[in-house]
Amino acid sequence: MTDSSPQGLLRPLLYPDSVAIVGASDDPNKTTGRPQRFLSRAGFSGATYFVNPSRKTVQGEKAWPSLGSLPRVPDHVFIMTGPEAAIAAVRECATLGVSVATVLSSGFAEDGAAGRERQERLRAAAAAGGVRVIGPSSLGVVNPGAGVLLTGNAAFGEPDTPCGGVFVASQSGSVIGALVSRARGRGVGFAGLVSTGGEADLSLGAICETVLDDPHVTSYALFLESLRHSADLASFARAADQAGKPVAVYKLGRSDEAAALAVSHTGAMAGEDAEADAFFRACGFARVSQFEGLVEAPALLERIPAGSHARDPRIGVVTTTGGGAALVVEQLALRGMTVAAPSENLVTRMHAAGAPIPHSLIADLGLAGARRDIVTDALRLMQDSGEFDLVVFVIGSSARLNPELAVQAVADHGRHTVPVVAFAVPEAPEAAMLLNSSGVPTFRTPESCADVIAATFGRRPCHLGLGPAPVPPGPTEVVDEHAAAELIGRRAIATPPSTVLDLADLDGPIELPFDFPVVVKALSDQLPHKTEAGGVVLGVEDAGAVRVAAKQIAAAVAAHNPDIALDRVLVQQMATGGVAETLVGYRVSQDVGPIVVLSTGGVMAEIFADSSVRLAPVTLDTAHEMIRDVKGLAAARGYRGTTPGDLDALARTIVGMSELAIYEPDVHEAEVNPLLVHPQGGGVVALDALVRRTAGAHGGKPATAPSARGTT
Amino acid sequence: MTDSSPQGLLRPLLYPDSVAIVGASDDPNKTTGRPQRFLSRAGFSGATYFVNPSRKTVQGEKAWPSLGSLPRVPDHVFIMTGPEAAIAAVRECATLGVSVATVLSSGFAEDGAAGRERQERLRAAAAAGGVRVIGPSSLGVVNPGAGVLLTGNAAFGEPDTPCGGVFVASQSGSVIGALVSRARGRGVGFAGLVSTGGEADLSLGAICETVLDDPHVTSYALFLESLRHSADLASFARAADQAGKPVAVYKLGRSDEAAALAVSHTGAMAGEDAEADAFFRACGFARVSQFEGLVEAPALLERIPAGSHARDPRIGVVTTTGGGAALVVEQLALRGMTVAAPSENLVTRMHAAGAPIPHSLIADLGLAGARRDIVTDALRLMQDSGEFDLVVFVIGSSARLNPELAVQAVADHGRHTVPVVAFAVPEAPEAAMLLNSSGVPTFRTPESCADVIAATFGRRPCHLGLGPAPVPPGPTEVVDEHAAAELIGRRAIATPPSTVLDLADLDGPIELPFDFPVVVKALSDQLPHKTEAGGVVLGVEDAGAVRVAAKQIAAAVAAHNPDIALDRVLVQQMATGGVAETLVGYRVSQDVGPIVVLSTGGVMAEIFADSSVRLAPVTLDTAHEMIRDVKGLAAARGYRGTTPGDLDALARTIVGMSELAIYEPDVHEAEVNPLLVHPQGGGVVALDALVRRTAGAHGGKPATAPSARGTT
Repeated sequence: MTDSSPQGLLRPLLYPDSVAIVGASDDPNKTTGRPQRFLSRAGFSGATYFVNPSRKTVQGEKAWPSLGSLPRVPDHVFIMTGPEAAIAAVRECATLGVSVATVLSSGFAEDGAAGRERQERLRAAAAAGGVRVIGPSSLGVVNPGAGVLLTGNAAFGEPDTPCGGVFVASQSGSVIGALVSRARGRGVGFAGLVSTGGEADLSLGAICETVLDDPHVTSYALFLESLRHSADLASFARAADQAGKPVAVYKLGRSDEAAALAVSHTGAMAGEDAEADAFFRACGFARVSQFEGLVEAPALLERIPAGSHARDPRIGVVTTTGGGAALVVEQLALRGMTVAAPSENLVTRMHAAGAPIPHSLIADLGLAGARRDIVTDALRLMQDSGEFDLVVFVIGSSARLNPELAVQAVADHGRHTVPVVAFAVPEAPEAAMLLNSSGVPTFRTPESCADVIAATFGRRPCHLGLGPAPVPPGPTEVVDEHAAAELIGRRAIATPPSTVLDLADLDGPIELPFDFPVVVKALSDQLPHKTEAGGVVLGVEDAGAVRVAAKQIAAAVAAHNPDIALDRVLVQQMATGGVAETLVGYRVSQDVGPIVVLSTGGVMAEIFADSSVRLAPVTLDTAHEMIRDVKGLAAARGYRGTTPGDLDALARTIVGMSELAIYEPDVHEAEVNPLLVHPQGGGVVALDALVRRTAGAHGGKPATAPSARGTT
Repeated sequence: MTDSSPQGLLRPLLYPDSVAIVGASDDPNKTTGRPQRFLSRAGFSGATYFVNPSRKTVQGEKAWPSLGSLPRVPDHVFIMTGPEAAIAAVRECATLGVSVATVLSSGFAEDGAAGRERQERLRAAAAAGGVRVIGPSSLGVVNPGAGVLLTGNAAFGEPDTPCGGVFVASQSGSVIGALVSRARGRGVGFAGLVSTGGEADLSLGAICETVLDDPHVTSYALFLESLRHSADLASFARAADQAGKPVAVYKLGRSDEAAALAVSHTGAMAGEDAEADAFFRACGFARVSQFEGLVEAPALLERIPAGSHARDPRIGVVTTTGGGAALVVEQLALRGMTVAAPSENLVTRMHAAGAPIPHSLIADLGLAGARRDIVTDALRLMQDSGEFDLVVFVIGSSARLNPELAVQAVADHGRHTVPVVAFAVPEAPEAAMLLNSSGVPTFRTPESCADVIAATFGRRPCHLGLGPAPVPPGPTEVVDEHAAAELIGRRAIATPPSTVLDLADLDGPIELPFDFPVVVKALSDQLPHKTEAGGVVLGVEDAGAVRVAAKQIAAAVAAHNPDIALDRVLVQQMATGGVAETLVGYRVSQDVGPIVVLSTGGVMAEIFADSSVRLAPVTLDTAHEMIRDVKGLAAARGYRGTTPGDLDALARTIVGMSELAIYEPDVHEAEVNPLLVHPQGGGVVALDALVRRTAGAHGGKPATAPSARGTT
């Protein structure tokens, strides 16, 4: 038996002593002929076997008829045949005790029903014997430091794949080559690159966790097309956090407008990508939004541990070119990051050191920036000042033409406790090489520079909860508002005083244990959107009007949908005086567990995707962070002199919804909309609540008799 | 006298026969020593004179004591002295009849009161003799094709500045060098580069217009720190549009949150950058938001004339790498651009040509993309199909390693009527060189690729109006709502039936020529924000209630501000039944004339800067475009099955406001907020209007007696 624990896989995965290529071609330019050439050029020192039953030799080397005919069991087999032959090869790997098989072959899950059936057989073949499979449709595995170029990606036809500390795992095979080419010559290098393909067995997360113990791996760059196998990613995230190895991620799908329509608005607010975003955040990953950020982010992430800084980082900018620095300042501002000006005292000390910077946001050295000694002194003063968490050095034309001046001075300071990053306004590959190699993360565009800085400081330590809740199988049902209010009341979320009236009892006396005016609402578990059905009457002033409203509602609901047998209405005291209305809800994602959402509700919030989404459990601190995230709550925060709302009570309500998600596992989705926020100290009140839970779990209607529920 | 008309300046500016450097240094590494070395290396064939009264030679060449001592009058003088000597040199240029003086010297307007005074003297010195001045603080003028390297920018220390058709004008001197370095080796070249500096005499716009007749100039790239001398830019824009030479612009200041607070919300909505944005749009400029777009945009702009395509361009994507193409598709989608899938018929023809593309949004050639003949056929079929306005080719690793395959095939199609652009997923400078040189605009990042495509198709032909209106001098005043309603009524903007009541007459009978319910509002030219002063009562049901409301308003306004002598209220019929509320307004910018604004009004619109801003005059077509621009109007457009609003009436109202701006020149600012939009066919109605005009121009209160104004 092979050792199939993740740790034990590291050696055959990235440091195999022997490899075999199944389906090796004699033509070195074919995809299936490339690995032979690549391995040889990269100086792979292990044994390499080529399996091709139809030939005596491939590219001048002996061709073996089968894996079983090899003189030893290879550590790692790269399979490049058609799909059926690939399944047979994996089965042979399992029989022989091969540790890892990477399958380039396509024609599996992406290829209709027949393909899905093949993928199942591939998985079964692997599971039967314990061989772990990467792929299918994997472009391969690369470890440049060990000469392991098990890949058909033409991009690796170049010699000298740059070595370094970044481990890349990508759902897109072509991206691994693209990242290598974009890192090349810039002082960024790789400890490994894996094209994860169809993830039939080893998922992207599992592969990343496998290499975590490799001391050469110091950070990760992940390219995702969609969020898959999140439990493995979560497991990896926890382990990476423990190991202090940071993770940058780029994910496609921010533009996807096909978010599934759920019963509540919470569903639309927390679509697939928002869910992924919340998940990455809880993982402690830094999500970058510019493609090149994947190459540029890891170095900065290594310098700034998650949670090591205050909420609003102090970013200092020093430059030899004011115009160029403005490019970065602008991009930072567009991402909500503000630059900290040097203090009066620091300016004075800079002047004394021969750096005639103006009294301004930016330390602009101007012509003095052409002198290495002045740049050295100025940068050291910035770093030693205690005024900054990060210093951004923006270098002008000297970056390209005279890297021995400012660039060298900046490079000399790359190991200072206060990190310095660089943006060179001109194209300056030599400068990038020197700077990156000296511990100064260097950016090629002002957009990526600002994006990576924002992603780095926005990162929190991994704080994943218990993982995806086991969603109960079977159908779900919406409960009526009264039952929903009772449920959220368990988490101390207040609702207005209310009582339930039977429509059959309308002609009797109506006495309410609270004052008018009131709201009358249809009470039914079949009416999640009451207002649209004419099921709500506001501002009802006396008992007679309650009677009229209830009859009106009964008629409207009957007209809206004759199948609904409405027999009760909810009478609720009107709430007034709030300074803001919000939506607080959650839904349980099959992938990542309960997702808590805060927004202002309403069409505008949906149009602008103005919501904050986090995985449960949400702490009070995180709840306050969510409140800050929602732009539409500016008024509730005291925008332009408006009365601030009771944000502490709002935060407690968010935490309460998160607790509901944790402690009521049969509730799939819950939403308070609107939640009225009163002025500071006045609390919040849930004016309506919607809950969807496992059908039949609680016998439909609440077991207790309807009754007034007291005052809040 | 020199010829100082713009056309006549082209020769001395970019093609001087003789140049003089004033303040030339003997040290070739000093800023002031560089031009000598640069000119010599670039092979400038004209006469070059060096003026330095304190030396016999500079860098081995004869040094002349003064401009006057030269054997001839140079065409173009580059002045690199201190500020006072620079003024003297300009004065000498004026006396001698020099055509152009470029002033590198600093210490002018940016340098306090003394500097501003020096700048005034510099301007006067130039004006006295007719010499035209570039700068001060200009890093110089470069025409690589003519060997003119009149610059102290160290970036030009490299030989072989790339020649081409792009003319760069930049308010930042360091940016011209940065752009050259970023274009170098990519097949993008320049017909000229000017650092415009302080624009004391020749503005950026004037310089651009000066070179318009140069046949070498085929497009423009402008870098702006702020919008200055807009009349010159407008003049240039009109001429460039006529000449068919497109303009790309990058402007800082999108993040500026210091928009001046004006009396109406229109002011906040149309801050400095929004104003610039509307101006660029009217100019027909393409504004890019990624810095590298300045290098990459001009080539595409040259291929796609403004207004040559339908509103929603049909963008086809063909690729050798599905994963890489997704990067571009995503970025396009984030900018509201959708990709057009190939038709069934086209897919069939592609298959027949050996290109086994899937039935999908993207024509993914997969492995077939490695064959030049297949790429050739596939791309030709895409271009010939008539299905696309633009084809984006996304090239995988072969772009870097085998440019003779797909890259060459794409390059061969660069001159097709249907333009093709390329994004290479790997770093691929050779491919970029070949593609750009072959008429295929090529991008280095997916973000810039999508940004430039969106900016290109978003461009309209130049449609500037009459330019900045002459804003009448002196103070302005707000007129009361009744007068404001009368004014907008002249442009057929309907208001609800209303009448004016004197507070003194309240005890008499109140008879209204329209039905209840009504709104009662304080009527005063001193209360632009009535609601905040308690000056509005809604839902008033009878005459008695009008009386009560009017007294309540009088009391509230008195409490709000005892200085306001309120003597009248406006009684307005309540309007109901609208499907949306909007804000339509304009204000007159000193820089660019009247700016028309559309938004949904309210705090959310401000927070999300969700407004559409255009220069007046606005046509009906443009008004509809503005309606499409405002995301918050999604509901009024029929979002998720909502009732669509009367968008034609809304568009007519926008045009009406634009006409008001044109025909009522003493109105500085006007705003309807809210404008109630009824369902389709139901029209719109202005529920409130605010107008600010030249003080005293119309005698305060309207001349006609207050009266009911009829029904709408």
